[in-house]
Amino acid sequence: MKRITLLLVAVVILAGIVAFTKPASIHADDSAAPIFVTTIPPGYRDWRLISVSHEAANLNSIGAVLGNDVAIKAYREGKLPYPDGTIIAALHYEHAPSAENNKVFGQAQSFVAGKPTNIQFMVKDSTKYAATGGWGFATFVDGKPAPAASMKSCFPCHNQTKANDLVFTHYAP
Amino acid sequence: MKRITLLLVAVVILAGIVAFTKPASIHADDSAAPIFVTTIPPGYRDWRLISVSHEAANLNSIGAVLGNDVAIKAYREGKLPYPDGTIIAALHYEHAPSAENNKVFGQAQSFVAGKPTNIQFMVKDSTKYAATGGWGFATFVDGKPAPAASMKSCFPCHNQTKANDLVFTHYAP
Repeated sequence: MKRITLLLVAVVILAGIVAFTKPASIHADDSAAPIFVTTIPPGYRDWRLISVSHEAANLNSIGAVLGNDVAIKAYREGKLPYPDGTIIAALHYEHAPSAENNKVFGQAQSFVAGKPTNIQFMVKDSTKYAATGGWGFATFVDGKPAPAASMKSCFPCHNQTKANDLVFTHYAP
Repeated sequence: MKRITLLLVAVVILAGIVAFTKPASIHADDSAAPIFVTTIPPGYRDWRLISVSHEAANLNSIGAVLGNDVAIKAYREGKLPYPDGTIIAALHYEHAPSAENNKVFGQAQSFVAGKPTNIQFMVKDSTKYAATGGWGFATFVDGKPAPAASMKSCFPCHNQTKANDLVFTHYAP
């Protein structure tokens, strides 16, 4: 009896895996469907600074935008579109008041990087990501890729800044 | 007559140089007087990220804090005090609303790095800057050092965070 139960459990798990992976394999053959970046580009925390940002309202985040060498070169030369190999990383943190700093300043004015909220990447590969303007998008939370469904909004939103090759962040001098 | 005028001009210039340099040479012998950093550390814009910050109220700035290799190593190892050779750079910009981003988001939520306001450095040299906790302080506006009088407040303020070796910024993961 126990064996049958275990077998049933195994079948249910397998069915779940097949159901979960099938859409992905269909998408791989469909060039119109978005492909997302699912591995964290190595070494990104050592990349150079592009700029900083603060999103108020619901996001309530403060962030640093970093670029790999290809990205920094392209930004500094001001040439668009960004070449293949460009990777841009947005490191987001809670926009956290700093009690420690405010005590010294004598007023509530200081906000710092709190708990990391997510890391987002844009990877330029005009062939692989042709369906999404040449960019592969990614969001990682606690080192794991966010659900694909949540990343479907990346391209339509970024596509509204076509004049900047889909990139929102400008270079800070 | 022309020669005498030129000679007089030269004497006046020399006297000016002597008068201007004398206080500096006195200070060099006076370990109690603060010494400020007056040249911009080369290559700082290529340094790695320590963290980001937002100062509201009068400052209204958003900033990136970068560190040279010695600084990044010390931060990642979490060892205090920071070793001689540590340099920390704070790049400050106007905390500027981004009309471009807000248009896409459909609401006023996005703030980016506006016009640069200043760049501040802390340089660790426990001998040279013994009078100010081992740190040399600097503020540059448009590439030029801020008046020495305006920098006298650096040390007393930073000295309030003695537990962090006078450094306010914590490392963002």
